[in-house]
Parts: sequence; structure tokens; C-alpha cells
Amino acid sequence: MARVYNFSAGPAVLPEEVLQQAASEMLNYRGCGMSVMEMSHRSKIYQQILATAEADIRELMNIPENYRVLFLQGGAYQQFAAVPMNLMKNRVADYIITGQWAKKAWQEAQLFGTANAVASSADKGFSYIPDCSDLPISENADYVYICENNTIYGTKFHTLPNTKGKPLVADVSSCFLSEPVDVTKYGMLYGGVQKNIGPAGVVIAIIREDLITEDVLPGTPTMLRYKTHADAGSLFNTPPAYGIYICGLVFQWLKRIGGLSAIEARNQEKAAVLYDFLDSSDLFHGTVVKQDRSLMNVPFVTGDEKLDAEFVKAAEAAGFVNLKGHRTVGGMRASIYNAMPLEGVQKLVAFMKDFERRK
Amino acid sequence: MARVYNFSAGPAVLPEEVLQQAASEMLNYRGCGMSVMEMSHRSKIYQQILATAEADIRELMNIPENYRVLFLQGGAYQQFAAVPMNLMKNRVADYIITGQWAKKAWQEAQLFGTANAVASSADKGFSYIPDCSDLPISENADYVYICENNTIYGTKFHTLPNTKGKPLVADVSSCFLSEPVDVTKYGMLYGGVQKNIGPAGVVIAIIREDLITEDVLPGTPTMLRYKTHADAGSLFNTPPAYGIYICGLVFQWLKRIGGLSAIEARNQEKAAVLYDFLDSSDLFHGTVVKQDRSLMNVPFVTGDEKLDAEFVKAAEAAGFVNLKGHRTVGGMRASIYNAMPLEGVQKLVAFMKDFERRK
Repeated sequence: MARVYNFSAGPAVLPEEVLQQAASEMLNYRGCGMSVMEMSHRSKIYQQILATAEADIRELMNIPENYRVLFLQGGAYQQFAAVPMNLMKNRVADYIITGQWAKKAWQEAQLFGTANAVASSADKGFSYIPDCSDLPISENADYVYICENNTIYGTKFHTLPNTKGKPLVADVSSCFLSEPVDVTKYGMLYGGVQKNIGPAGVVIAIIREDLITEDVLPGTPTMLRYKTHADAGSLFNTPPAYGIYICGLVFQWLKRIGGLSAIEARNQEKAAVLYDFLDSSDLFHGTVVKQDRSLMNVPFVTGDEKLDAEFVKAAEAAGFVNLKGHRTVGGMRASIYNAMPLEGVQKLVAFMKDFERRK
Repeated sequence: MARVYNFSAGPAVLPEEVLQQAASEMLNYRGCGMSVMEMSHRSKIYQQILATAEADIRELMNIPENYRVLFLQGGAYQQFAAVPMNLMKNRVADYIITGQWAKKAWQEAQLFGTANAVASSADKGFSYIPDCSDLPISENADYVYICENNTIYGTKFHTLPNTKGKPLVADVSSCFLSEPVDVTKYGMLYGGVQKNIGPAGVVIAIIREDLITEDVLPGTPTMLRYKTHADAGSLFNTPPAYGIYICGLVFQWLKRIGGLSAIEARNQEKAAVLYDFLDSSDLFHGTVVKQDRSLMNVPFVTGDEKLDAEFVKAAEAAGFVNLKGHRTVGGMRASIYNAMPLEGVQKLVAFMKDFERRK
């Protein structure tokens, strides 16, 4: 089989030219005589790979100098603990519950202090983003936490919450580098890279310098302290070196195609193709309130579970894979991350139209 | 430049045929139409990769059924905290200090309880392994901890300590899969894979089932609980999926060449070539007590720092790279892990002989 159109929610499709480059450099990176997998992380050649990756993401996201970029491990889930361990000076934080991942972060924070759920969209199956313009933010909250794009439910904060002066901490795993972002609006944003950037096993955290302190909760492991990694330039111990290299290749791909404004335009065009069809279809419909729709994850259903299953099976046979929805939402979900070409979405919609015609 | 002989202490040389296979499968894994990097970790095809990797390491190491194999993240350093957080029921453990990594593990454990240094070889620059046949093991120690092969100093426990009935916990990062091992002698053994097995970013932990409990220290992050990963078969959250795939290719390579007895024979032959030369040379000499020498990491010096530097530079120009010793030992270090061919060591020794002749 040739390459498929892979709508996986993550790990997910990567740019084909990045994979080609990785394959061609696998045994001998640019004439140095070894694979990136085989390089000492203390070697000049690897440090150049890491430094270039950091410089490129800084350029792409226009990250101010007073923010540090950390390459970490353990997935977003490990950050659910690291965030309170590092930032909960008063042992109080406010969480906005817009889906499973926000909820899990909130539950993990309760191991370390008082974590208040100040808003939630659980009442309607997380199909919308609550109004966060005037929430009851706790006076002594150390931060306000959101999951900015909800992979499972297909919602996105198009307006960031009013945190009333408290630092905003955002899990951006599934919208990382999908559009321009104003980093100064966040105290910290972080995400696993395995949706929009690279292979699973790397987390990129962007943290305002004043939030990186020695003053962490007692019993915080050295590896979970942000200061450990900030002081060592992400080389405190052996980093996930090959994964960071792939992230770097993706950053260079993004720069070549015009940066985050260019990818945003592509993502809007792709999403419009799918959402416009869903809005006009008699068979398929989206599950999310229109104004809160994600550009990255598009859940949809027919309303008939058997028909959903039939569609997923037929689509897979036609080379559109990983369209089965998350078990908590059911139906289908098309994740159309940066590396999904417009053509993939157009062909999927053509396939859906054909499926609908035959019903 | 063609492929070099890479004597890096880690990340380190990998088998060339593994890299070739990874390159050839990069865009399309065995006809499935996507890279392993792009696969959902919940997909059948990826779960097969993970299950095969686990079955293969179980076969290679003859791991008994009452031990679990966990694929984790965060490097050995994260285990320095996870070990006490999970195992320190009495908040007491005994550490044997045979180098920097054992020392760091011991220091990290002090965040969580009483960590006793019951033996040390610091008095002679960690150039030997202390007699551990009758140590003052604490009556209520939850475990006894060692770093089994000391990457920096080139020593190895050829006899495991007498733990007087306490579970033995061993960091085996730099001797993992280098020779047959009796797993039943350990409560837990674990290591980062980036020396002998795969790309940095994966830790493999092998833990006796009765040591995996709900009863962890308060404030232990969900991601640092062994039970989290044991219950979920290493799929609690997205694992470092591509790294595990490469580890799996290395396991298959080891099986093809005859398993751990065969690789042990190769490793003994390689190490003998280098140690025999060091023992006969007038210029170069090893830094470790003979009976405690590692098969994997071979530090050596000329006794003249300038000459050491000259040698490292000349060797690099000749295609023998990463021979500079760790800054705390100085001189040179040749790490000759599983994937270093005999030819690489023979050629290095020929180069050293030639260098000596010219002095």
C-alpha cells in the first residue's frame, strides 16, 4: 500500500519531506559518520541540532526573551503534576474543565493542593467552551489552567480566559504551532509534540522566567523541577535527542512554507472544506458548537452507530485511516493537523459525499 | 565521511543493520502506509510492535512471569526519584556508592527518606568495586541500591552484593543486555536504553510484581507510579513509541546473532583485545582494578594530559570518535557496547600501537 491519509489524533501524520530527510540521514547525519540516534548529547554536532531547534521555535512563535523553552519528557500527563509542583506556591489553582485532559490535569493537581474547577462544559458533553470572561478566579490562585484545544471533543479556546491577572497555564498539545500565538498572554504553555510536531516522547514547555524558581513543593523530583532543565539548557541529563531532531526538521519545514501565518491559512482552508460539508450534509453532522470548533480535530456522527462503524470501515479500505471517534464521543473524528495536506481533506469529503449518495 | 567508529559512552553506536531497516521503513512500515512515528499508540499495528518488543526482551533475558517489563520515560535520573517514591515503604534504603550516578541516586533518595551509604569506593576515585559480601544492611531497609556498571569509571559488579534478604535495585543502563543475567536476583533492574539498546528517551524497568503496589509515598505523581504503567501495559499515556520500535529492532538483532550468551562472548573478545593491549603497553594504561573491569566502558590514560589530548585529536582524525574521557577521570574512555564491532576495537588498538611507536 502507498502512503495513506492518516487522520489519527496522535501520534499523527508528519510532513513526508521530513520523513524522507530523516530516512536519508539515518546512517550518516550530514557526513559526520553516525546517526543522530548515536550522537553524544554533549557533542558539538548534537548541541547544534538542539540550539537550532530552539532558535527556530523561538522565531516561529516569536517567543520573547524572558521566556525559556524546555525540551522535556513524560508527555502532557507528567506536566499535570509538574505544573502544580513548580507553580503552586500558595497551593491553590483554578482549572477550567473543557474535557478529559483538563479534568485529568485538575485531578492530578489535587494531589498537591486545592484545585478549583471554576468553569466546566461537562453539562453538554464538552461540546462547547464556557464563557470565561468573568470567572470566580480565586484571590490566591497561583495560576489558571486550561487545555486550549480539546483533542477528543474538537473544541478550542478562540478567546483566552480572563484570568484577572493570574498566570495562564495552557496545554496546547493538539494546537501547537497551528496558528500564530501571543506568548505574552501565557505564564506557561506546553504540549506533547506527537500531534503537530514530532514523534511521541518529547514535551516542549515555554515558561516565563519569573515562574521558574527554586521554590518548589517539598518532594519534587529533580527531573520535574523546571529550574533543573532551564539552568542546563535542556541538557541536564540525556534528552530525547532523536525526537528533538525530528521536531527541528518540522520547524524548518514550517519556516520553508512561510511560518505560522501560512500554516494557519492552510489549516483554515482545510477545516473549512470539512466543516462546510458537515454543515450542508443530510447524513453527517459535527458535534461542536460552531464558534468553538477546533481547526485540528473534527468530530462528526451520522446519528446511527452501525452506520458510523460502516463508514469507518469503508473509509479505511479506501485509504482514509484512524477516523474512528474517541470512545467517549463515538462516531468519527478527523484530526487534520499541520501535516495533513489539503488534498487529503478534499478526498475525504469526496468520499463522504459518495458514501452519503449511496445511502 | 563514511561511518566512523563511535566510542561514545551514550547515546552510542547502534547496529548498522538496525539503522538500515529503520531508514527503509521510515515512510511506510511494512506496507501499512505510514511511519512508526505516525501511528496511533492505540492501533493494532503499534500494539503488535510493543508486544513483540516485550516478548523479545523477556526471551532474551529469560524474565520470569512474576516480573513486569515497563517502558518508561525520563532517563535513569527520573528513576532516582521513582524508586524511593514507589519502594520506600519504611522510608529507609541502603545505597552502595561506586560512582557519580550511584551518588546522584543516593542524593535524590534523601528527598524522600533516610538513604544510607553502606559502602563506597570514593576513597580511590571509584576505581574499584567495594567488597559487598557482608555490609551493614539496615534492618528496616526497603531495598539495597547499586549502579551495576559504572559508565564513567569503567567498573562493574561481577558479583552482586549480599543484600541480606532485602530487594536489590540496580541501574543497569550501561550493561543492559551485554551478557546473560539472573533476573531473580533483583527486586528491580532498570536502565536508560541509549547505551546498548536504542535512542535516548526510553527507560526499561523490570520489576518483581510484589514490589508494584498502590502504597506509594504521598505526592507521587501518577506518571511516576509503577502501578500506573504496569496496569496499562506501558500504554497509560502515549509512550515514546518510535524509540520502543528501535529497541525492538535491536532485540531482534540480538536474537538473530544468538542472544545474550553470544553477545557476551563477543563482548569478552572485544574487551580482551583492548585490556590485553593496555596491560602490555608502556604508554597507555587502564585506570581500574583488574577484577572489577567493565566489559563496556574502558577508561585509560597516558599519564600526560597533553599527550592524552594529542591522542584524542589524532584518533578522531582517523575516524575513532568520542574517545575523550569523562572530565572527572580525564584521559580517554572507549565505550565498546554491543553494537561496536570487533573490527572497531582491533583497529583502535592498531592505531594506539602505532601512536605509541611514534612517541
